[in-house]
Amino acid sequence: MKLKIAVLPGDGIGPEITQQSVKVLKAVADRFDHHFQFEDALVGAAAIDLLDNPLPEATLELCKKSDAVLFGAIGHPKYDNDPDAKVRPEQGLLHLRKGLGLFANIRPVKAYDKLIEQSPLKADRIAGADMMIYRELTGGIYFGDKFTAEDGQSATDICTYSVEEISRMAHLAFKAAQQRSKKLTLVDKANVLETSRLWRKTVTKIGEEYPDVALDFLFVDNAAMQMILNPTQFDVILTENMFGDILSDEASVIGGSIGLLASASVGKENAMFEPIHGSYPQATGKGIANPVASILSAAMLLEHFGLVEEAEAVKKAVELSIKLNVCTIDINKDNHYTTEKVGDFLEGLIS
Amino acid sequence: MKLKIAVLPGDGIGPEITQQSVKVLKAVADRFDHHFQFEDALVGAAAIDLLDNPLPEATLELCKKSDAVLFGAIGHPKYDNDPDAKVRPEQGLLHLRKGLGLFANIRPVKAYDKLIEQSPLKADRIAGADMMIYRELTGGIYFGDKFTAEDGQSATDICTYSVEEISRMAHLAFKAAQQRSKKLTLVDKANVLETSRLWRKTVTKIGEEYPDVALDFLFVDNAAMQMILNPTQFDVILTENMFGDILSDEASVIGGSIGLLASASVGKENAMFEPIHGSYPQATGKGIANPVASILSAAMLLEHFGLVEEAEAVKKAVELSIKLNVCTIDINKDNHYTTEKVGDFLEGLIS
Ligand SMILES: CC(C)[C@H](C(=O)O)[C@@H](O)C(=O)O
Ligand SMILES: CC(C)[C@H](C(=O)O)[C@@H](O)C(=O)O
Repeated sequence: MKLKIAVLPGDGIGPEITQQSVKVLKAVADRFDHHFQFEDALVGAAAIDLLDNPLPEATLELCKKSDAVLFGAIGHPKYDNDPDAKVRPEQGLLHLRKGLGLFANIRPVKAYDKLIEQSPLKADRIAGADMMIYRELTGGIYFGDKFTAEDGQSATDICTYSVEEISRMAHLAFKAAQQRSKKLTLVDKANVLETSRLWRKTVTKIGEEYPDVALDFLFVDNAAMQMILNPTQFDVILTENMFGDILSDEASVIGGSIGLLASASVGKENAMFEPIHGSYPQATGKGIANPVASILSAAMLLEHFGLVEEAEAVKKAVELSIKLNVCTIDINKDNHYTTEKVGDFLEGLIS
Repeated sequence: MKLKIAVLPGDGIGPEITQQSVKVLKAVADRFDHHFQFEDALVGAAAIDLLDNPLPEATLELCKKSDAVLFGAIGHPKYDNDPDAKVRPEQGLLHLRKGLGLFANIRPVKAYDKLIEQSPLKADRIAGADMMIYRELTGGIYFGDKFTAEDGQSATDICTYSVEEISRMAHLAFKAAQQRSKKLTLVDKANVLETSRLWRKTVTKIGEEYPDVALDFLFVDNAAMQMILNPTQFDVILTENMFGDILSDEASVIGGSIGLLASASVGKENAMFEPIHGSYPQATGKGIANPVASILSAAMLLEHFGLVEEAEAVKKAVELSIKLNVCTIDINKDNHYTTEKVGDFLEGLIS
């Protein structure tokens, strides 16, 4: 298969982890006789520094004409602590999601047997936990109008959802549930929010088309609690943008390290693959960042194009590396490997 | 001291738990020679059933002219699953918060030594955890305009915050931090939301008036993760309404049971005390609900009026009951006491 892959390393640890997943993808191409062509582009703080624009036009163009985007990470503390900053790195990511129409963000969360000890949660709570979070990605309060009053005395963010935005997400989530344990949980705040009530109504109706899937509802506050109390109750979780952001970061504790969690963002025409962790600025350049989330995102890329055997090879390699403790310091405290060494090891296993 | 206390049992387990805290408050009054006068009023689904109004005028009036409100719980599944319901129990609670001007909700979270085993979190992560969550309670997306488009094809919720709303919360939280470990964490999503940037800006500025308090910032997604990874890092957490709702429910896992968590909601003129748990409809009338959250809310009521010794007596009694395992089934799985028996035991200890 021929694939043109845009690589957007971004900020902080983005470049060093993305380098490892590119290495792994190249090994996959060699072994399975595919032709993957990679092209790098600027995004985030890195792009602001050079071009004053977190998402340069050339980057968006490249992404549009590529088959897939491999994304690193975004964000830099110098913008976080400046509430008056006019441009911010995160706008690059948000515009990219919107510009490519990536309305669904899919985040698998699972407890690796070997890592159960690492988790802050007790083993009996998380053993067997295995869920997919379907987070809406181009709507809601992230993309509504936002403004500060002229006198600077108040600020507003608007959250809107349409039946259409909810429906296309719901169909994806129901279909995913059909492939799994046939259970879908909608997380909302329907006792307070009008948008949540539209979600509940729309998803309930669409549920009639999927009679084999058991649909239930959870208020987001309760969901944030249940995620820790009893994570094995979840199969597919469907939720709106902001709640999905919060819940999926929270859910990362189940896996033992946020450095393991991959995601796919998909739309009608484009697809992007990125770790759920951030740019982790304190770690930049130290060789301590875990490349596995990026590498598993690359595996999701392979799956997306039907390269199931290839994706399996990557996932198996990751599992083996965890079993053998060939891991970065977030997982292997005593005798850790560097970002690059972990990448080399996985590359070697696949080649 | 003379206190007029409005009692709003509400829905589900609300009445049975509130009965226990009233009992405890009466025991306190007897022992310390105070005069507490209690008056009941309707709220929530209970009020809808009788008067078609989740917050009858008479209830609000009673609350206004009382010194404090003791609130039970609110919510009923028959409304949750009806996205078209015109009135909902939760409106009663929201109108009450707004009507009484209760802009600050204060939720202490702490790991009881005896209960560390109960927590889904490993002991070494939570030992010593002790934080206060300051949640803004009468602003944000809860109280902004909300509407559905005429064609029913989209819905909108508006989130607004003013400098004034943020400031009064910030002062309370900084003052609380001064009384504790002098650390304040603002949780927001300033990399995406305009309102969050106003929070960050306003709180940073007010921080200059409290040079002895170390102020730091956390994005809400990261905070949801840190709450589980390393809860002892927190002292006072300050946040907006929706984030506070989610984080405080999540934080309840640290204590071992949400049935233990109390809260105070305060404003300029009024104060209300309520458990953070919901109406738990499945448990209604079964005598299995934990009354401790309501009883500790009563202790916060006492503290609020400067009755420190009295509040200590209640808290000591609760600690002893936990030590002796005189607890409901959420905590004492094998040999549990009923809601009423726990209340009787605590009443007995105080008398
Ligand atoms: C960087 C930030 C804008 C982003 C988000 O909130 O969506 C990140 O937290 C994520 O989850 O991908
Ligand atoms: C019942 C509901 C409206 C309420 C809220 O969201 O504020 C509850 O969850 C709480 O935290 O007190």
